[in-house]
Amino acid sequence: MSGTHFRRVALIGLGLIGSSIAWATRRAGAADEIVGYARSAQTRATARKLGFCHKVVESPAEAVEDADLVIVCVPVGACGAVTAEIAGSLAAGAIVSDVGSVKTSVIAQMAPHLPANVHFVPAHPLAGTEHSGPESGFAELFDSRWCILTPLPDADPHATRRLRSYWEALGARTDEMTAEHHDLVLAVTSHVPHAIAYTMVGVADDLQRVTDSEVIRYSAAGFRDFTRIAASDPTMWRDVFLNNREAVLDILGRFAEELFVVQRAIRTGDGDYLHDYFTRTRAIRRGIIEAGQDTAAPDFGRIHKAEKGRAG
Amino acid sequence: MSGTHFRRVALIGLGLIGSSIAWATRRAGAADEIVGYARSAQTRATARKLGFCHKVVESPAEAVEDADLVIVCVPVGACGAVTAEIAGSLAAGAIVSDVGSVKTSVIAQMAPHLPANVHFVPAHPLAGTEHSGPESGFAELFDSRWCILTPLPDADPHATRRLRSYWEALGARTDEMTAEHHDLVLAVTSHVPHAIAYTMVGVADDLQRVTDSEVIRYSAAGFRDFTRIAASDPTMWRDVFLNNREAVLDILGRFAEELFVVQRAIRTGDGDYLHDYFTRTRAIRRGIIEAGQDTAAPDFGRIHKAEKGRAG
Ligand SMILES: NC(=O)c1ccc[n+]([C@@H]2O[C@H](COP(=O)([O-])OP(=O)(O)OC[C@H]3O[C@@H](n4cnc5c(N)ncnc54)[C@H](OP(=O)(O)O)[C@@H]3O)[C@@H](O)[C@H]2O)c1
Ligand SMILES: NC(=O)c1ccc[n+]([C@@H]2O[C@H](COP(=O)([O-])OP(=O)(O)OC[C@H]3O[C@@H](n4cnc5c(N)ncnc54)[C@H](OP(=O)(O)O)[C@@H]3O)[C@@H](O)[C@H]2O)c1
Repeated sequence: MSGTHFRRVALIGLGLIGSSIAWATRRAGAADEIVGYARSAQTRATARKLGFCHKVVESPAEAVEDADLVIVCVPVGACGAVTAEIAGSLAAGAIVSDVGSVKTSVIAQMAPHLPANVHFVPAHPLAGTEHSGPESGFAELFDSRWCILTPLPDADPHATRRLRSYWEALGARTDEMTAEHHDLVLAVTSHVPHAIAYTMVGVADDLQRVTDSEVIRYSAAGFRDFTRIAASDPTMWRDVFLNNREAVLDILGRFAEELFVVQRAIRTGDGDYLHDYFTRTRAIRRGIIEAGQDTAAPDFGRIHKAEKGRAG
Repeated sequence: MSGTHFRRVALIGLGLIGSSIAWATRRAGAADEIVGYARSAQTRATARKLGFCHKVVESPAEAVEDADLVIVCVPVGACGAVTAEIAGSLAAGAIVSDVGSVKTSVIAQMAPHLPANVHFVPAHPLAGTEHSGPESGFAELFDSRWCILTPLPDADPHATRRLRSYWEALGARTDEMTAEHHDLVLAVTSHVPHAIAYTMVGVADDLQRVTDSEVIRYSAAGFRDFTRIAASDPTMWRDVFLNNREAVLDILGRFAEELFVVQRAIRTGDGDYLHDYFTRTRAIRRGIIEAGQDTAAPDFGRIHKAEKGRAG
């Protein structure tokens, strides 16, 4: 536990991720004190009421004073401005990290502001829900999920190791890679799926011939899974797309290309092609279940009473 | 109950849907006897072992003899051939139905074979999981899900009513519309989302720069929901796309068009457009939850221990 314990953790941003880090830190006993700051008075008041921080303060600079771990938990586009505000108050030797869903852009925004006597270790916990705000957090959010660290080439390995074991104490599994590789992997596993889901929900919303109520009523057949993804926070996702533009456009381009091939197979009635294609994609699902990244229960376990009826 | 009770229900095809109909029929006490047939000896043996039918027979013609309700539960592309096989053995006055995910094509395949003295009422229960085969069925599959009937213009209203109340006895809510409208609505809510999910999983599978294991390991960020959709039965889905070609290509075309608009907003850095777009799509999700078509629990309720940590 020695490597994972911090005296004072400062959280800048107290939404889903910030509040979940606070709850998980308390559960793990990984810090003596958690100090929090959020932009709006409303969020600060909610945070005080919920009590996940020991102290909620009125400025980001005040929050980071004497902290040996600072985690910036704001939308990707706001990381630069927040870092500029805290830079002058950081304690020597502090570890400064973030949770942004994009890494190259966050590094480009944060690194220039940071003094030489702190350790900057960017990180991204791959855990979230479609909800946001200080009330949506909970201690188990990171359990068995991955947290990817993207330390810079000249990072202090000791600081990186401390942050890894902190995230492990919070329940996560950890990995390291370059920021560039992270941004490409996430474009595939998260950013482009979100862009696609948002677009499909937008198409459904536009269709005049299919009324809203029909789309909603009959959504259980696949569409509703897209709507859950497309219910995520608009600010967060705007920032993700603007800040991981290159990788997202690269993968979106490949997707569009591939979609035309599938579309043509449907148009020309190439049943063998479709059958082969749909068989190949099954294997990936099997891998995900074997890797413990999802439930094998049908329909994500939504159907809880399965099997019961067999007695009938 | 009088309207919902059948003497003998014949099920042709004993996969996920056929076996679930059998279990649900038993639970409801909606038939005196259930007779089943499946193409392969293996499925027939499994069905006998599981015992959801009273009798499993060796030919489709034998299964329908004396049945007052016949439900064809095979992939959409096989409905015509199966109907040709049973046509000569149908009892006068029997209701003949199906469960196919596409309706115009199934009607075109089945209707020409059917004698004038039976009542053909096509139907589609909007319920399923990514699993298939006789072992995947369960009595609760249809509970609170919709079953859409698409009776032909000259259908006997009494037969349609009987079939509706049968599906209601099985737990479903029922609705009626034309086959053409059904196929358009389902293209939006189910078929195109499946095509997109299959394509995105295919893209991920192709990428050389991102290894399979990374895609699997980091799938929790959105991609894994696509893989669940894309794990559905390849034969069923090949048949859906080949048989609902026109509506699917129509909606896919709109999707591709819209995707280019979103893509351009990302490329040009139009944050306002993206934020507005992502805000609009949230409303549809809210509608789905209010309509009782999905859980409001974060992440589909995968996170069961939420809130617990707050005590910490
Ligand atoms: N949600 C996910 O699924 C997920 C998963 C992994 C990583 N992340 C990353 O985690 C970060 C936070 O996401 P979240 O889900 O926790 O979001 P959230 O629930 O919306 O919370 C965001 C927090 O940042 C504050 N904030 C917003 N804009 C700000 C600005 N311009 N300046 C200063 N503070 C600002 C907000 O303050 P107010 O409440 O006062 O507005 C709030 O406390 C993002 O970088 C995101 O990429 C999210
Ligand atoms: N799965 C869903 O989510 C869902 C939802 C609503 C409606 N549907 C519709 O329900 C129907 C059946 O789907 P399912 O999920 O039950 O599929 P399934 O689990 O794969 O079962 C299909 C059944 O049809 C039989 N069959 C397959 N090909 C055949 C052929 N050429 N001739 C005769 N019998 C054949 C199979 O026999 P063997 O086992 O012997 O091969 C099996 O008993 C499809 O029309 C589908 O569109 C499916």
